Amino acid sequence: MRTGMFDSFVTRHWFNAEAKAIWSDQATLQAWLTVEAALARAQAELGIIPQAAAQTIAAQADASAFDLERLSRDIAFAQHPFVPVLRQYEALCGEPAAGFIHWGATTQNIFDTAASLQMFQSHQVLSRHLDAAIEALCTLAQQHRDTVQAGRTHGQHALPMTFGFKLAGWLDELDRDRSRLSQRLAGSFVASLGGAIGSFAAMAGQGRAVEVRMAAHLGLAPAGLPMRSSYDRVSDFVAALGLLAGTAQKIAQDVVFMQRTEIGEVEEAFHLGKVGSSTMAQKRNPSSALMLTSLARMLRARVPLAMEAMVRMDEGDSSATNVTDALLPEIAILATSIAETLAQLVGGLVVHPEAMRRNLELSQGLIVSEAVMMRLTALMGRHEAHHLLYDAAQRTVAEGIPFLEAICTHAMWGTRALPDDLAQSLQASAYVGDSAAIAMETAARLARR
Amino acid sequence: MRTGMFDSFVTRHWFNAEAKAIWSDQATLQAWLTVEAALARAQAELGIIPQAAAQTIAAQADASAFDLERLSRDIAFAQHPFVPVLRQYEALCGEPAAGFIHWGATTQNIFDTAASLQMFQSHQVLSRHLDAAIEALCTLAQQHRDTVQAGRTHGQHALPMTFGFKLAGWLDELDRDRSRLSQRLAGSFVASLGGAIGSFAAMAGQGRAVEVRMAAHLGLAPAGLPMRSSYDRVSDFVAALGLLAGTAQKIAQDVVFMQRTEIGEVEEAFHLGKVGSSTMAQKRNPSSALMLTSLARMLRARVPLAMEAMVRMDEGDSSATNVTDALLPEIAILATSIAETLAQLVGGLVVHPEAMRRNLELSQGLIVSEAVMMRLTALMGRHEAHHLLYDAAQRTVAEGIPFLEAICTHAMWGTRALPDDLAQSLQASAYVGDSAAIAMETAARLARR
Amino acid sequence: MRTGMFDSFVTRHWFNAEAKAIWSDQATLQAWLTVEAALARAQAELGIIPQAAAQTIAAQADASAFDLERLSRDIAFAQHPFVPVLRQYEALCGEPAAGFIHWGATTQNIFDTAASLQMFQSHQVLSRHLDAAIEALCTLAQQHRDTVQAGRTHGQHALPMTFGFKLAGWLDELDRDRSRLSQRLAGSFVASLGGAIGSFAAMAGQGRAVEVRMAAHLGLAPAGLPMRSSYDRVSDFVAALGLLAGTAQKIAQDVVFMQRTEIGEVEEAFHLGKVGSSTMAQKRNPSSALMLTSLARMLRARVPLAMEAMVRMDEGDSSATNVTDALLPEIAILATSIAETLAQLVGGLVVHPEAMRRNLELSQGLIVSEAVMMRLTALMGRHEAHHLLYDAAQRTVAEGIPFLEAICTHAMWGTRALPDDLAQSLQASAYVGDSAAIAMETAARLARR
Amino acid sequence: MRTGMFDSFVTRHWFNAEAKAIWSDQATLQAWLTVEAALARAQAELGIIPQAAAQTIAAQADASAFDLERLSRDIAFAQHPFVPVLRQYEALCGEPAAGFIHWGATTQNIFDTAASLQMFQSHQVLSRHLDAAIEALCTLAQQHRDTVQAGRTHGQHALPMTFGFKLAGWLDELDRDRSRLSQRLAGSFVASLGGAIGSFAAMAGQGRAVEVRMAAHLGLAPAGLPMRSSYDRVSDFVAALGLLAGTAQKIAQDVVFMQRTEIGEVEEAFHLGKVGSSTMAQKRNPSSALMLTSLARMLRARVPLAMEAMVRMDEGDSSATNVTDALLPEIAILATSIAETLAQLVGGLVVHPEAMRRNLELSQGLIVSEAVMMRLTALMGRHEAHHLLYDAAQRTVAEGIPFLEAICTHAMWGTRALPDDLAQSLQASAYVGDSAAIAMETAARLARR
Repeated sequence: MRTGMFDSFVTRHWFNAEAKAIWSDQATLQAWLTVEAALARAQAELGIIPQAAAQTIAAQADASAFDLERLSRDIAFAQHPFVPVLRQYEALCGEPAAGFIHWGATTQNIFDTAASLQMFQSHQVLSRHLDAAIEALCTLAQQHRDTVQAGRTHGQHALPMTFGFKLAGWLDELDRDRSRLSQRLAGSFVASLGGAIGSFAAMAGQGRAVEVRMAAHLGLAPAGLPMRSSYDRVSDFVAALGLLAGTAQKIAQDVVFMQRTEIGEVEEAFHLGKVGSSTMAQKRNPSSALMLTSLARMLRARVPLAMEAMVRMDEGDSSATNVTDALLPEIAILATSIAETLAQLVGGLVVHPEAMRRNLELSQGLIVSEAVMMRLTALMGRHEAHHLLYDAAQRTVAEGIPFLEAICTHAMWGTRALPDDLAQSLQASAYVGDSAAIAMETAARLARR
Repeated sequence: MRTGMFDSFVTRHWFNAEAKAIWSDQATLQAWLTVEAALARAQAELGIIPQAAAQTIAAQADASAFDLERLSRDIAFAQHPFVPVLRQYEALCGEPAAGFIHWGATTQNIFDTAASLQMFQSHQVLSRHLDAAIEALCTLAQQHRDTVQAGRTHGQHALPMTFGFKLAGWLDELDRDRSRLSQRLAGSFVASLGGAIGSFAAMAGQGRAVEVRMAAHLGLAPAGLPMRSSYDRVSDFVAALGLLAGTAQKIAQDVVFMQRTEIGEVEEAFHLGKVGSSTMAQKRNPSSALMLTSLARMLRARVPLAMEAMVRMDEGDSSATNVTDALLPEIAILATSIAETLAQLVGGLVVHPEAMRRNLELSQGLIVSEAVMMRLTALMGRHEAHHLLYDAAQRTVAEGIPFLEAICTHAMWGTRALPDDLAQSLQASAYVGDSAAIAMETAARLARR
Repeated sequence: MRTGMFDSFVTRHWFNAEAKAIWSDQATLQAWLTVEAALARAQAELGIIPQAAAQTIAAQADASAFDLERLSRDIAFAQHPFVPVLRQYEALCGEPAAGFIHWGATTQNIFDTAASLQMFQSHQVLSRHLDAAIEALCTLAQQHRDTVQAGRTHGQHALPMTFGFKLAGWLDELDRDRSRLSQRLAGSFVASLGGAIGSFAAMAGQGRAVEVRMAAHLGLAPAGLPMRSSYDRVSDFVAALGLLAGTAQKIAQDVVFMQRTEIGEVEEAFHLGKVGSSTMAQKRNPSSALMLTSLARMLRARVPLAMEAMVRMDEGDSSATNVTDALLPEIAILATSIAETLAQLVGGLVVHPEAMRRNLELSQGLIVSEAVMMRLTALMGRHEAHHLLYDAAQRTVAEGIPFLEAICTHAMWGTRALPDDLAQSLQASAYVGDSAAIAMETAARLARR
Repeated sequence: MRTGMFDSFVTRHWFNAEAKAIWSDQATLQAWLTVEAALARAQAELGIIPQAAAQTIAAQADASAFDLERLSRDIAFAQHPFVPVLRQYEALCGEPAAGFIHWGATTQNIFDTAASLQMFQSHQVLSRHLDAAIEALCTLAQQHRDTVQAGRTHGQHALPMTFGFKLAGWLDELDRDRSRLSQRLAGSFVASLGGAIGSFAAMAGQGRAVEVRMAAHLGLAPAGLPMRSSYDRVSDFVAALGLLAGTAQKIAQDVVFMQRTEIGEVEEAFHLGKVGSSTMAQKRNPSSALMLTSLARMLRARVPLAMEAMVRMDEGDSSATNVTDALLPEIAILATSIAETLAQLVGGLVVHPEAMRRNLELSQGLIVSEAVMMRLTALMGRHEAHHLLYDAAQRTVAEGIPFLEAICTHAMWGTRALPDDLAQSLQASAYVGDSAAIAMETAARLARR
């Protein structure tokens, strides 16, 4: 019997398979054992436990030898998530090694450090997909450096730009997301030791040295001060993943709009066999973009939970750690799935420059009113110019006549001749500002080096 | 390979087993088929499809005949969650019945109506546990109608009360939760038909009649106007579950505090074999209360997601329905688990009246300063009384002398004789107000009738 | 010096002026005094305090006689929000009446009951605007019962419908919002007495009778069991306001899309002098819809705060009541502003049926593929029909030829003659289902009776 | 008439006065003008506008010359937040300078850059208070390096530690908060130019150079790619403020608990005249800690709003910028108030070492069961030891006898002599691990250098 979106037959394909494997029961147990082995090795090096014991403990650190179903029953009975694991581990190691497992550690030390390992692995998968998305967007931005498109604000045409410029905006933000995650990973996911309350009480003054060595064996930084009631390091990273989700959702929303039936400027990859609807044969939905939006919402909704979980009683508080123990896998899988879906979406994006041009011309010149304004200001001052153009724009909207005509037939225009460069101001492609340069420079900056 | 908190060997026992079964893959598929069967039956009754077809469709509405693994692969390929189900269903029914399955419906109609059925089932389980919790609390409230305890505000002793009175407060709120859920269930979880955009386009004017009959067969109310872009009915119920979570967390927090080592007024049920810590043999943690807090947080964090999902584009928006399709099972399982954990917690609560009394006496009489104030006001006016008592209280705190002594030795007291009833005012049990009456009346009102 | 969005010169016009007045300093103080007067009157009726005292207390219950600036300083010094108010009130009443003010009550009793009064007033304003919005939509729905428009799902054309049908969907949801608020108001905002911990300790057994009378004087229901640690009643109403915000945001999002430059199906009211941009003279932004979205987001973000505030320590907890004392005015003002902005938006909505028709025809018939599917299924069976139409639809999209032509030139069509009713199936206006009926019935049901 | 928590007579003292001044109407207008002046100056330097115009524009950049009330009315009428400001500014400058104000900029450029300036100012105030809090805690940590206290997990005594160690945990987390804010400030709050859609269209290729110079004049970094639809930089900082709130709330919760009537280990500063209750003269509430909790909740609830506001349509979206324009001042004021309240709280904290010791002894030795376990493991192996201690602990709890006695009278203990060092293991102060070292090292590391 399966329950839960990661495993359900309806939804499991929404989620990145590698990330799910990293956080599966088997892999989680293995991560715990890996941490126990590193702990034992560190303690043996410092002469705290016998070398032979550490070797046995490491040799038996193999999740496949454990009985998961029995573990599950024992955990439910003991109402403790780790003591039953220790019991099986001890049985596998036998005495005297058994007595030296988990020496001076507390359950949460093992859980947190194992989760750090799993987050490092998740980040690697996430990064691969994020890099691929950025790479694909760089290529698109270069291809469309000069593809003119309507820039829109508040849901209305504003100024012309190029599609490459829009992509540069996506890229710039995605790159910041990427940097934030890389820069914060090691500081957020550390190796923690310290025992029940973080005081290293059971390690006779050598606790911090053990933590440093254990961390080194695992490729992590040591916590230093492993207070179980501090969670800000992890919450910080979760927030950065929330920002990635925000970026992804913004991009997805743009795609959904640009694929609208009436807009048609871009289109998601389509394969024969993909079904949009059981009865409407024509449907080609932007399913990846909509799914990306959904995943982003799911992740963003979990960020406050990670922040709230910082507020912990005293020196340890399972009402918070229960939450985060269950939350972190969800966050990691969602974030990785967001990166993967984003890479798929932008990697397969079909662009329709002719639709972009067609939409741009819809407003009969209104979209370059700012250019005209800049030109007329020189001619007649800013107030006059704004007044004339405001009137002319209303007429264009109301009567559907070209903007240029509405200008030249306005009373304030008088008998002026039409300046040569006014008609030119009305060329959308001439008023895209630094679009092309920004597109090319951004792509060059971010493309795989 | 298992991923996700509902199934994981570490956490699966946190969650109500019945609720997980209701929302399992198998049961979800069955609910879909049940809805399809009811739809076919309704349509046959109205002469829209042949009776024989409806009978075949109903006869084959058996989830165990479906190949879930193949479904899962086909769903991933088609990127459509239901067309592959229809294909298998059609194969099971054969022509001509196959052609009449899902007639005029859209996928979301089936999903939403099936989820309504599953929520009715979940509510039944939830109610059973909630009733049990209320019943247990009624008994406790009656037993402790006169058990004097410190009432606390802002973390400090305020006035005496009885433990039964505190329980009455829990009960009153839980009963409102219970009523809200019962009253809103049928209006929140309806049967929806209407097709792609809710206009009943494919049903030649008979759509609404079909919806009414289909609903009746399923024991649900008809949506009436089944706009796929409206989700307020469900979000309303989810919010009411969020309120239940809030109540449960408040109670859990009270229990955690009252079980604090220094307070010791109540204690969770304990069984030999329950382990508090791998190294600290003495630990008896309030694990159920802490778990209840965790579950409540998980649920509350999901409420905004259900509210945000009301904001849907146009006539249908999978970026929202993806979210809610995955969310509703989580919400239902969490809510049921909250009710179950609450029932376990209060059902096994051990009460220590002697600790309540001991704590009450800690403040050397200060806890009844209001009673003294009421008495002295009559004697010397309110301002004088407050002034004298404010000073006396500071002295009791600073010097540790009994409050009564601090009062009588204050300059403002002068040479007054000690009124007989002043010492009596300092009896905590005499200043519990309507505690006992409220405890008894509330218990009587809510106890199983 | 002013700080805060309600008063700032930049943003104050976003917010409903009446609601701001209801929750202004002056009006809040007045509400407190009104509650004190009702309390005194109730106690005098029951013989607990002298009639003369109650009369004086009522006579002096006038906020304009208080010195707000001094109150503010004294509150900051005492770190108590109400004792300084009592001091001024006592001075205004003089002895002996002064001694009977606030008899047996606690600050939070007064604050909560006053907030109930203010919420009743706010609800009245909100309702007026919500009624106006519904009324305007009813008129529009009737006018546009037959105005054909593209129904869209997942951002793509799905089926034709009428604009009146879309409006019926908005109306149905708004009406549920309205009902929820009306039905829950009295149960959510009650009159609370009970003193420091809700036990009525200082009222010698008559406390509950006083609460009943006080409530009656204020037109409220009595709390019955006025636990200060219970907040579910208010949180429930706040959640219902969150649902209203969700509905409003959904409508606003629809309007923003329909006003998109390329879509142009509706338009917000425009007045000369309204400025879209300082440099782009042509801009006519859907500012009210965008503002409505903003207000809805602000309100929805505050709902979790109201739910979290249910989790209170013991018998009273200012860490929660501080939050809700500051939150409730914000919620009330935001909700009323949402209703007002919504009424303005839909009251001034300009509809462009010709644009709706133009957009509908964009897909060259694809939008009615379901109708054709229903027709062809009868002709050749469902699988064949879906296969043929799926191919034809791809060709229409890829090559830009009319859907009908793509169908008839498909190999599977063969030499069949074109059925008369097939071309008719391709009339969008013939496949709007129950659109018109639903529009008219909904409008009739909700229009002012 | 005043509405809103920052200005209300009841609540204004909750909030930092300097931060409110920074975000007041007057100061906000001034920040806008400062940005306009820097823009003009940068453009004059590059020869885009005349030097004389830039000088006039700078000279008139004085908020006190503006008519705020008229601005407010004009903004409401134009439904544009800045055009009326430009009108007054132009009138103050006169022609020809008037024509060069705001050249090539868009409103949001000015608003965002001004907000950056205001956030730098706010951060300075916040940092001062945060530094003061850290400094005070460093002193306390050194004073209490050896003050033994019960370490608690899951609401129960766990191990002994020192109070200095607990403070080190607070310090370590606060220092990370401080570093995050300092490191991210400049990258989060930049100077933005770029015009309507960020393409620098109106600046003839010199836009980015202008942005660099304008930024330099303001002491900010240039945005580089000033997409108006990107908000991740700000949201990132808001999230970091959310983490600070989490830390503060954790500390506040610890203080509230430690001040509990039964615990009494610490106490907030108290001054005569501070009132805990209008009727309960004895009340000394931990008001600052409770207020700190409230402020933290208010701030944390706003973080999702800042994250959601990243999801913006196209090249600009007032439905998001309306939200953030109103939100950022609230966030800044709340965060600064949190830092100030925290500094007050820890700066005045009174510590009661004798209460810490008394509470530690409550459990009759159970709190050092881990130490005994470590000792007995050497004697009899881990399983035997845990078995014996588990039994003995239950007996101590059930019968109230000292833990040592329960151990020595257990059947498994047999006739063993009592090892000398066992009684010593039961000295709490001997089992505090690295508490003292951690306290001293942390204080030394963070104390003002």
